[in-house]
Amino acid sequence: MRHLCLTVQYDGSGFHGFQVQNQGVRTVQGELEKALETVMGESVRVTGAGRTDAGVHALGQVVSFWSRGTVPTERLPLALNSLLPADVVVTDAKDVGSSFDARRSKSFKTYRYLLDLGRYPNPITRHYALHYPHRLDLEKIREGIAALPGEHDFAGFAATGSTAGQGARGTVRFMRQAQCDYLPPGPLSMPGDDQRLLAFTFSADGFLYKMVRLLVGTLLEVGSGRRPPGDVAALLQGGRAVLAVPAHGLCLLGVEYEEFPA
Amino acid sequence: MRHLCLTVQYDGSGFHGFQVQNQGVRTVQGELEKALETVMGESVRVTGAGRTDAGVHALGQVVSFWSRGTVPTERLPLALNSLLPADVVVTDAKDVGSSFDARRSKSFKTYRYLLDLGRYPNPITRHYALHYPHRLDLEKIREGIAALPGEHDFAGFAATGSTAGQGARGTVRFMRQAQCDYLPPGPLSMPGDDQRLLAFTFSADGFLYKMVRLLVGTLLEVGSGRRPPGDVAALLQGGRAVLAVPAHGLCLLGVEYEEFPA
Repeated sequence: MRHLCLTVQYDGSGFHGFQVQNQGVRTVQGELEKALETVMGESVRVTGAGRTDAGVHALGQVVSFWSRGTVPTERLPLALNSLLPADVVVTDAKDVGSSFDARRSKSFKTYRYLLDLGRYPNPITRHYALHYPHRLDLEKIREGIAALPGEHDFAGFAATGSTAGQGARGTVRFMRQAQCDYLPPGPLSMPGDDQRLLAFTFSADGFLYKMVRLLVGTLLEVGSGRRPPGDVAALLQGGRAVLAVPAHGLCLLGVEYEEFPA
Repeated sequence: MRHLCLTVQYDGSGFHGFQVQNQGVRTVQGELEKALETVMGESVRVTGAGRTDAGVHALGQVVSFWSRGTVPTERLPLALNSLLPADVVVTDAKDVGSSFDARRSKSFKTYRYLLDLGRYPNPITRHYALHYPHRLDLEKIREGIAALPGEHDFAGFAATGSTAGQGARGTVRFMRQAQCDYLPPGPLSMPGDDQRLLAFTFSADGFLYKMVRLLVGTLLEVGSGRRPPGDVAALLQGGRAVLAVPAHGLCLLGVEYEEFPA
């Protein structure tokens, strides 16, 4: 048996999330397993590093799987991409040790949440950024976000009812990075539209269910003056965030494992 | 009668081009006229600055129209956006003089063509950039592109059979800017993926049919060594470009008029 991992990008707009569900809905895992079955000549079950929700995108999702298939590792991306639909792309394949697990091996995941601050929504970013045409005080947001780096109990930023069965570490996570910056316009916006795309970036050794969307929702309340910046630190001590932003602004940028694969 | 102009953005992926056609296909003009009819209370015919093809996007298209409708100009964007589908957005409305014509008034249009140079296509840019996973010599491209600024007869970069009836100036156009640069990754690519999105930008006082796509096609032949850079200058003297790149990498960035509206 070989143990392999793939790096995967997808446009989440057309998927009911990453994970295979009971109903016959379209999922990233389902598309990957269908393509792998053809390429590997046997049914394959993949484990994803992050179980992204419906509408969430990925530029660096990682999945691992076991297989007896004989296709050389370096040929896997091309073979799979020739079968996959255009909204899922495999960018890398690696052999990994038997103890590796895309979901459970120690790693840092990086998520980014995008806002389109334009007065009217840019039609080209509409599936990748939340249109938010309201005034935001970036200094207040940064004051609030400064409370996040470090090891904290993030239970206040988890969806209600999702914190049972978190294992030994419970709801404690180590956040390595939390920041909020304008993104250069890049390919989707007008050149010169420099303060239009606002990106929240979070890197941590794990995320609770809806954690990024509740963090951004709370930080938008802070930025619009409906909550003081100190509420972010307070919610790490107790209480519960209530506002979660929609899924489509969220993207799993990447997963870095402590051990191979890098 | 009022004479008005609108600035319009659209994701061209879901349209059979800008211009209304005989068959009942979905066009940008058709969607705009439908929304205007409701808002203005009468049937309206719009003239677009650039008649973009199926799949071509716009971040700064301009359209003009006459109407007896009484909605205040400053309320038009919001009123129209509440009726328009999510892939067309009106970002500005202005009153213009009776002699103005979005298509015929003297202007500079700027088009950008995007390439995704990644080994595998980024699924999030797939509708906005041509995947081109081949080696390109940027210096050769820039040597070729340097022939374009200035006043030239661009007949060699027009689709066959499209150059009849061009009016007094025939196929001569003044190109103000022609350049090729990497775009910062922005919202669609991995941070740090700095040499992945290549943008061709052309600004001229008019474009012949398929001119940008034939220019980029020829420059890709130059960049991949299949043609010498001197061929670009030669095609301004005679002969005809043959390779046109697909529509979906193209975007009308903006239109600047000599006279109001700016």
